[in-house]
Amino acid sequence: MNTFGHLFRLSIWGESHGAQIGVTLDGVPPGLPLAESDFEADLARRRAGAAGTTPRRERDLPRIVSGLYRGRTTGAPLTVTFSNDDTRSEDYAAAALHFRPSHADATAFRKFGGFNDPRGGGHFSGRLTLTLVAAGVVAKKMLPDTVRFETRPIEIGGCTDPAHFDEVLQRAAADRDSVGGIVECRVQGIPAGLGEPFFDSAESVIAHLLFAVPAVKGVEFGSGFAGARLRGSQHNDPILDAAGRTATNHAGGIVGGITNGNELIVRAALKPTPSIGREQLTYNHETDRTEPLTIRGRHDVCIALRATVVVEAAVAIALADLTRRR
Amino acid sequence: MNTFGHLFRLSIWGESHGAQIGVTLDGVPPGLPLAESDFEADLARRRAGAAGTTPRRERDLPRIVSGLYRGRTTGAPLTVTFSNDDTRSEDYAAAALHFRPSHADATAFRKFGGFNDPRGGGHFSGRLTLTLVAAGVVAKKMLPDTVRFETRPIEIGGCTDPAHFDEVLQRAAADRDSVGGIVECRVQGIPAGLGEPFFDSAESVIAHLLFAVPAVKGVEFGSGFAGARLRGSQHNDPILDAAGRTATNHAGGIVGGITNGNELIVRAALKPTPSIGREQLTYNHETDRTEPLTIRGRHDVCIALRATVVVEAAVAIALADLTRRR
Amino acid sequence: MNTFGHLFRLSIWGESHGAQIGVTLDGVPPGLPLAESDFEADLARRRAGAAGTTPRRERDLPRIVSGLYRGRTTGAPLTVTFSNDDTRSEDYAAAALHFRPSHADATAFRKFGGFNDPRGGGHFSGRLTLTLVAAGVVAKKMLPDTVRFETRPIEIGGCTDPAHFDEVLQRAAADRDSVGGIVECRVQGIPAGLGEPFFDSAESVIAHLLFAVPAVKGVEFGSGFAGARLRGSQHNDPILDAAGRTATNHAGGIVGGITNGNELIVRAALKPTPSIGREQLTYNHETDRTEPLTIRGRHDVCIALRATVVVEAAVAIALADLTRRR
Amino acid sequence: MNTFGHLFRLSIWGESHGAQIGVTLDGVPPGLPLAESDFEADLARRRAGAAGTTPRRERDLPRIVSGLYRGRTTGAPLTVTFSNDDTRSEDYAAAALHFRPSHADATAFRKFGGFNDPRGGGHFSGRLTLTLVAAGVVAKKMLPDTVRFETRPIEIGGCTDPAHFDEVLQRAAADRDSVGGIVECRVQGIPAGLGEPFFDSAESVIAHLLFAVPAVKGVEFGSGFAGARLRGSQHNDPILDAAGRTATNHAGGIVGGITNGNELIVRAALKPTPSIGREQLTYNHETDRTEPLTIRGRHDVCIALRATVVVEAAVAIALADLTRRR
Repeated sequence: MNTFGHLFRLSIWGESHGAQIGVTLDGVPPGLPLAESDFEADLARRRAGAAGTTPRRERDLPRIVSGLYRGRTTGAPLTVTFSNDDTRSEDYAAAALHFRPSHADATAFRKFGGFNDPRGGGHFSGRLTLTLVAAGVVAKKMLPDTVRFETRPIEIGGCTDPAHFDEVLQRAAADRDSVGGIVECRVQGIPAGLGEPFFDSAESVIAHLLFAVPAVKGVEFGSGFAGARLRGSQHNDPILDAAGRTATNHAGGIVGGITNGNELIVRAALKPTPSIGREQLTYNHETDRTEPLTIRGRHDVCIALRATVVVEAAVAIALADLTRRR
Repeated sequence: MNTFGHLFRLSIWGESHGAQIGVTLDGVPPGLPLAESDFEADLARRRAGAAGTTPRRERDLPRIVSGLYRGRTTGAPLTVTFSNDDTRSEDYAAAALHFRPSHADATAFRKFGGFNDPRGGGHFSGRLTLTLVAAGVVAKKMLPDTVRFETRPIEIGGCTDPAHFDEVLQRAAADRDSVGGIVECRVQGIPAGLGEPFFDSAESVIAHLLFAVPAVKGVEFGSGFAGARLRGSQHNDPILDAAGRTATNHAGGIVGGITNGNELIVRAALKPTPSIGREQLTYNHETDRTEPLTIRGRHDVCIALRATVVVEAAVAIALADLTRRR
Repeated sequence: MNTFGHLFRLSIWGESHGAQIGVTLDGVPPGLPLAESDFEADLARRRAGAAGTTPRRERDLPRIVSGLYRGRTTGAPLTVTFSNDDTRSEDYAAAALHFRPSHADATAFRKFGGFNDPRGGGHFSGRLTLTLVAAGVVAKKMLPDTVRFETRPIEIGGCTDPAHFDEVLQRAAADRDSVGGIVECRVQGIPAGLGEPFFDSAESVIAHLLFAVPAVKGVEFGSGFAGARLRGSQHNDPILDAAGRTATNHAGGIVGGITNGNELIVRAALKPTPSIGREQLTYNHETDRTEPLTIRGRHDVCIALRATVVVEAAVAIALADLTRRR
Repeated sequence: MNTFGHLFRLSIWGESHGAQIGVTLDGVPPGLPLAESDFEADLARRRAGAAGTTPRRERDLPRIVSGLYRGRTTGAPLTVTFSNDDTRSEDYAAAALHFRPSHADATAFRKFGGFNDPRGGGHFSGRLTLTLVAAGVVAKKMLPDTVRFETRPIEIGGCTDPAHFDEVLQRAAADRDSVGGIVECRVQGIPAGLGEPFFDSAESVIAHLLFAVPAVKGVEFGSGFAGARLRGSQHNDPILDAAGRTATNHAGGIVGGITNGNELIVRAALKPTPSIGREQLTYNHETDRTEPLTIRGRHDVCIALRATVVVEAAVAIALADLTRRR
């Protein structure tokens, strides 16, 4: 469903090429100072323009249509909307029934009996992540002042040296191809005690949100998959003091599903952009045959770049909900 | 919270060394044939005894105390309980305030103000996974007959050759140490169309449950983290026919958060057992000092072995809930 | 929270004098024909204008901003918004801290620490019921074609003869006073089997929604409070046939929390409009004294008239959610 | 579903004549002193024995099987079970397919395809209210010390004079008949600010739970249905001071869905016990004919007597959940 959270709850709606997309945030405490300009910094991080991302340039102006009075949140649901202005539906119309590989075209068509809005991916579009970014901005305001996020791509197309990321992107673009990437989010200053055993472990709630972000295919905390190759004597994090500080942090700040006050470390693996300029053979529902498809339109060479702030927003949303549940 | 699921909902309770542990399953369809003996096969997979696992031998006899009448489920909540017989609380008492590294001792102590039951990990004990296995047995009965699970450890202590797993375990045991592992679950015959955009993607729901399993620190679907190193032209799965069959399966059976009818592939990374026989320096809440701790008692050398059927159960539970929501 | 429902879920937002109010409906099946004009009939029933209601005349034009494509629902969240045009905030500003008796002014002020939007009742305004009416229109489309609603005020200001309702209203208006009323909703053609024991009985879900409607202070099904005065031999409804038809219908169509296929009968008691033209003595937060208050602005003499279609919408929403859960 | 509540959540299970019934309480704060003897007072209020109630005498001994350690709650789920000892299944077997009027026999049969446990009403039995009473005991411990409950039948079989209740019951018993009643629950000392607009108004949450109690057919707050007959000038409760104390209390302590700190007043109408000794004509599923039915077994003459403490428990559970959500 399109709702997430217990005491901080978001509902999102909209399609890539519909009239508006939006998000309603319930459970925002009253009295938080908030202005539309507060969204600008994170929206800019997400916005198209960097090397390797699509040239589509929405103005992405957030409009707060409820829940705000005299510059402060009211405690009632806070709704933020974005208009869809710069759309070129004709680019996408052809693809509707000639299913793009590794896109939601085919699964959405089947699930919704062909009634889904196919333009630009419809409700499955990466454009919907705008609403997550907006929600993340509010979520961060709900967290203690001590909290600091640092989120960045740590690997692009298999390359782990940021100095060479551009090169990787340009080569892929030249080949009309795309690359995947890995984003790491580190959060300092989180209170200990967040996370609800058994099922709402901090990892469960964060991963739930991260796997809702389009293109995320893997999530790991702390040592993650690499930790499975260590021995207990290497992996265990000895506790140093009453505050729970540990000598190492293989746990990534979460033990027994509960934050321990150390730095939270989470990584998300994002698959390569499925929309590529190269011709692909794939099933055409109209002709009932496998036929060559050339995807037109504008696409990111690497989703992971634009998804960086989305990953951060997802983590912030999860932490805000867990904080309210304490 | 200790409840999970929308239309197939489980509530679990109990502590490692309390009177009972149990699980209540709500939303089980009426009329399913069920007997206590149906749980035996999966419980046996989990049970202690294999190399590398603890010698604690609960009889683990499930008792169905509600929701069953004349050998069939009634549609009312189905409750399965297990008694805790073979407990040696004294082994664990000492550890209560001398926090074991990478255990929930410290986080639980802080979250619950010291009122948590510390014996054997209390509610955080791996023993609680018995209830997940029981729930998984019922969940599998709720899935179509076409569904087939194949779940196995694919890596133990960094070793990917099953022929050498025993050796790895024995070496670790000889060193009074432990190892981590990676479990892979493959499911064939799943209907297409499971998963609810935006937030309840099939990946989100499965990962949510998997990260509730103690020791899981990473989850990936299909190509996962390795897929982030590929190009789109390599990673895309061309669709072959109207049924949605794909030439490759980097997606692991889920696109746009919705199952596409191909094999579901999910992997979970499990950290090494934190309880090891070697002495460790860690904080003692009673003395307010860092002191050497030697953990006594009986422990698995490798949680991943016993967790294999738990991972499978978690996937089955998620699929049963998603199936009921269609 | 501002979200309701399991598989048919609505999220509402907005304030009486904010920019917009709106509702997002999740779980609407794909393929339902829908147009903005479909809302007109029920919105007209709610609209101001009849004797005894406020002269405020919003155009109340619904705008569908997501979830619709080529005249049919897509299966993605359906959002309907209404602009707030005809507002006279200055009428209400004075009342903000001079708390109107039996209004949410004081409780909202305390709950939200004074940050709530006080204009026109803010998020507590009866205007929010527009979103329920809109949701009800969609809900009715989700119910089987057999379903027929008949909803009407059966008592106004203590008068049970509809021929004299106008008279009652005019007398109250002349006295600058208001009256309460009772609304009855009857629904024919409901499938048997709706309602989920134990906690989501059909009565529980319907009553939950009805008590969210401003001014509702009582809800009863079938014989209701009067039935508590009967004997079992009078009150029991003998079953006549395999379809579950009963000779009498004291149950109001629900037994054991589950619909039995007979007519559903539910009544809601609505208190008199708290906004009256007569001077009232009440606490003024600014002066910290009890002082005379004269409420200006435009108000319904009897909320029950306008609430009739809201009660019907609430019942329809509950039934739609229960129908989807079967 | 059989789960209720957001942060204080209960899951109930069991059948009248099964092995056990039980309730799991999640979200109980750690450190509350609790013993099995704490349940005795409220269980005694519910227990059979008073004039007009069934002679079935379960010992009703609660057993706490999880969530308690050294006499205090741990913060983990608290489970309380009751064994079913004194059952006479043969009394009820005959009734299984010869549907008792105004019982859940027919609706449960249809909803669960005939797989429901029919003995003694199965999961629909009033016996399940034992679990609500147990939950209510814990809920009361979670409320502030200022809170005082006073709950009593205010009307039995149409009689409003408690001095004559016995007489009413004896006359009905002599006629092998039953009577309904109205229960009023008053709660003093509730904090202001409980209740979540829009949908989780205090009235909504309380009514939701009350309508889950078998036999409840009406719920009203404060002036309720009678208030619908008053004028605004009579019904409005002028606010007297900064604490929100009102001169009158027609609101029953809830305005705008939020508690205002005045006494909470709620009433529930309970239908007459449907099981009566007199012969009734009703549909027999086995013969597919309407035939005379004589119900044997032991039954309350008036459910409202035994339900008094259940109504109180339901109100306490709702308040505990709302309190935790603040």
